[in-house]
Amino acid sequence: MGLFGKDIKSMENLFTHTLQDIYYAEKQILKALPQMEQKATNPQLKSAFKSHLEETKNHVKRLEDVFRMSGQEAKGVECPAIDGIIEEANEVAGEIDDKQVLDAALAAAAQAVEHYEMSRYGTLAAWAKQMGRMDCAGIFESTLKEEKAADQKLTTIAESQLNRQAAM
Amino acid sequence: MGLFGKDIKSMENLFTHTLQDIYYAEKQILKALPQMEQKATNPQLKSAFKSHLEETKNHVKRLEDVFRMSGQEAKGVECPAIDGIIEEANEVAGEIDDKQVLDAALAAAAQAVEHYEMSRYGTLAAWAKQMGRMDCAGIFESTLKEEKAADQKLTTIAESQLNRQAAM
Repeated sequence: MGLFGKDIKSMENLFTHTLQDIYYAEKQILKALPQMEQKATNPQLKSAFKSHLEETKNHVKRLEDVFRMSGQEAKGVECPAIDGIIEEANEVAGEIDDKQVLDAALAAAAQAVEHYEMSRYGTLAAWAKQMGRMDCAGIFESTLKEEKAADQKLTTIAESQLNRQAAM
Repeated sequence: MGLFGKDIKSMENLFTHTLQDIYYAEKQILKALPQMEQKATNPQLKSAFKSHLEETKNHVKRLEDVFRMSGQEAKGVECPAIDGIIEEANEVAGEIDDKQVLDAALAAAAQAVEHYEMSRYGTLAAWAKQMGRMDCAGIFESTLKEEKAADQKLTTIAESQLNRQAAM
């Protein structure tokens, strides 16, 4: 925040600000995912975090493409939302010793992250379309699709295994 | 956080913690929605915030029902995630003078809030089912359905009106 001062005057400015917001968020997620993978015990959950890390690296590259296509330098702005979501995930994980309960908490935390990203990419895709920037809209929609799939995968893992084990 | 110290030992504890988390979040949203309604200019957006405020009051009551059904006192734990999402919404809104750009930003912020709630209610419904607490699961699913509908309504408003006006 604060990059524009009181200076978000147009949809173009708002678009750029939100692009910088999700760029910062993706970079925080890049740091968080290896820690989540390390804390997880369930092999499917570990593997989901690992493969989503690779996807996230690609999402960062795609955002850099959009900055380039917009004639702008790729940079982030602080995003209190993702900072809060990750802080909460770390706080809860720090309160759990039981491995299966921890797995359930990690999967839930990751789904909160996915949902934040889904809301931002959905917004950016809609704005890009309204602004006639169909090339950017297509990029956001590709990432949105992958975020939704990652969320769905976590639901499947959580429902089929983690919760059942942890409730035993 | 911190209510349990390092003491989330079971799915039951994790469930209660997450229930307290979303209870705190809903109460913060109750405070934020009237401010968002006041800042919004587009009549459909104003009306969406107003009707979601009424729904949110009901979501709080439903959570109090779940606390009661669990033999527990209704109370919240600090939720850095919702605090961050609302802080970010306020920061961005504070940087915008143009009414139509502000409407687009408010709708996007509200969708980030909806998505956080969707992730939490989805998680709570899944955990309740796994723990055999079908009565609670049904309550969470009712609220989840309303959060999804509120998100969809915001998408429709944003796509049909706000973005088009603001991009002109």
